[in-house]
Amino acid sequence: MLTSAPFELRGRRTLLLAGDAFSTTEAKTAACYLMYRTRDVVCVLDAKHANQTCDKVVGYGGRVPVVGTIDDALRLHPQQAIVGTAPMGGALEEGLRGQIAACLVAGVDVVSGLHTFVADDGELTAMAEKSGAQIWDVRRVSQNAHVSTGVGCTTGAKTVAVVGTDCNVGKMTVAVELAGAFSARGVRAVWAATGQTGIMLRGRGVCVDRVISDFIGGATEELVNVEGAGSDIVFVEGQGSITHPGYAGVTLGILYGAMPDCMVLAHVAGRAHYKRLDLVIPPVTDIVRLHEQLMAPHKPSRVVALAVNTSALADAPARREVDRLQEQTGLPTTDVIRFGCAAIYDAIAAATIGNR
Amino acid sequence: MLTSAPFELRGRRTLLLAGDAFSTTEAKTAACYLMYRTRDVVCVLDAKHANQTCDKVVGYGGRVPVVGTIDDALRLHPQQAIVGTAPMGGALEEGLRGQIAACLVAGVDVVSGLHTFVADDGELTAMAEKSGAQIWDVRRVSQNAHVSTGVGCTTGAKTVAVVGTDCNVGKMTVAVELAGAFSARGVRAVWAATGQTGIMLRGRGVCVDRVISDFIGGATEELVNVEGAGSDIVFVEGQGSITHPGYAGVTLGILYGAMPDCMVLAHVAGRAHYKRLDLVIPPVTDIVRLHEQLMAPHKPSRVVALAVNTSALADAPARREVDRLQEQTGLPTTDVIRFGCAAIYDAIAAATIGNR
Repeated sequence: MLTSAPFELRGRRTLLLAGDAFSTTEAKTAACYLMYRTRDVVCVLDAKHANQTCDKVVGYGGRVPVVGTIDDALRLHPQQAIVGTAPMGGALEEGLRGQIAACLVAGVDVVSGLHTFVADDGELTAMAEKSGAQIWDVRRVSQNAHVSTGVGCTTGAKTVAVVGTDCNVGKMTVAVELAGAFSARGVRAVWAATGQTGIMLRGRGVCVDRVISDFIGGATEELVNVEGAGSDIVFVEGQGSITHPGYAGVTLGILYGAMPDCMVLAHVAGRAHYKRLDLVIPPVTDIVRLHEQLMAPHKPSRVVALAVNTSALADAPARREVDRLQEQTGLPTTDVIRFGCAAIYDAIAAATIGNR
Repeated sequence: MLTSAPFELRGRRTLLLAGDAFSTTEAKTAACYLMYRTRDVVCVLDAKHANQTCDKVVGYGGRVPVVGTIDDALRLHPQQAIVGTAPMGGALEEGLRGQIAACLVAGVDVVSGLHTFVADDGELTAMAEKSGAQIWDVRRVSQNAHVSTGVGCTTGAKTVAVVGTDCNVGKMTVAVELAGAFSARGVRAVWAATGQTGIMLRGRGVCVDRVISDFIGGATEELVNVEGAGSDIVFVEGQGSITHPGYAGVTLGILYGAMPDCMVLAHVAGRAHYKRLDLVIPPVTDIVRLHEQLMAPHKPSRVVALAVNTSALADAPARREVDRLQEQTGLPTTDVIRFGCAAIYDAIAAATIGNR
């Protein structure tokens, strides 16, 4: 059910379409792409933040400009445009559709992670055919589906599920950084992308929340086996949260498809309520226990580390919050971006590849 | 996202297409339809069990004949044919397709719960158009989807989720029987169908395992609100099991979409392994606790009763097994078919509509 990029995204002049939401989690795809591919990005389109630089708006991305109109953006000669917003439900609203149309007319390739497929819009595909532009709907899944049986990865690679206390806590970032940290020590480590932004960065994956629900586990199982081929360890990007009223089904389906050897729990420092909902997130220790209980019938898989996103805090309070959560849970804890992966490396290695 | 029957199924001469699997759980749709609509069924088509009566093959259904060929079946003048098999994955294999074709050519309406839609097959729809036969793919869901927010039923009706220790334990039957028992006492009780057989019997519902996974909860939420309108209590048919490696995502999505006021756990006496899998089912008490822990962040919802399917046992061992599980769990326990709903009625009423 995997999708793969029809062209190599890396190294191409990139326009990020951020709606009018660049500074919010609505535009997390734009923000993540900017973080990991800064040098590729020629500009971000967002009328609300126009005429500023990215570092002023989101705190990184240096002097990459934010522009206010699609014409200004196209004047910078992008080769590809990435739809950088992830609205709940994923519809294609009119303003964004106009920007996509302008890109396709100008021969700029379009990469989209919306539920509504760009390539299903006859007018837009006609524009693309005329100009030669390509469209990649990263949520598109093929139909060769199966129901998972709980075997997980059978290539010999170990699997680590990056789970979370909510949506938008940074699960993908944790998977990327951990794969990088293990690779740096000579381990054949990869990460498996299960969401739109991850698929764009990894160049392949499966948008699990787009799969017909009977096949969530099967799609994940296929994914970890593809990524596990030739690897020692696969870090699986989780989605949602195990007690999230809207997304928990997807969360649990991924967990059972991946059948991880251990888990890493991602959390945002200070977030008390689920994103967009007036509902309290359970204590971290309860969430740890729930994951372990759900895995217990299948495998003695434990949450072996916490990855805390402290991006909203200054250095000193960030350090205090990491230490406090480590104390409270008894688990090795870090912020993988701010403090690196060293503090949790050994715990993950011990639960997977052993000492090597 | 609901589907509704394009014609009233009840009261029409019905052919059940049972593959060659009538006596197995593969043909559970045929078996359930036969149980609840015995008088409508003119015959069951199953080459392996041909020339017997239903009561000889499955233990009920009286003298309804099992026939060996589609020609024999059509000679009994059915008005509608129901695809009575539910293979894992839900594909339309060639033998069954031929039977469906023969029905459509003969002007017999076809009702199917397969993942592969009959109406997406150009040849079959052409046959239907020519003869005037109708096709109802009960798994078809519309695309007006939303992500659930955890509000559950807002009509004022109480909701009871019928959950299970595995697939094929009889969750739908429990929902049907409980709705009947509450109705018999003057409560406005209905049940909400989430699977193929249920939708055929109820005449409407949503095949939740067919929904795009982001919308499992939203589809269930819509369903309980439709069924809750004008009702005091809605019994929601669950799917799969919370620790089933293939289906748990769907199970949890339904639970959070329904946000039940209490739960009833369905179980098959003596079943130790998940159906079709070499994997031990956790102890009933663990499964009870998991459900309650998953509900705890949202609502103090408890498993208030057990419904045990003892159909494979004789009367005395069935009674002993029900008593043993009641003792072990401390929960009111019954087999709703064999012993009725009285033993668990009060516990469910107390957790929902109170004493009335």
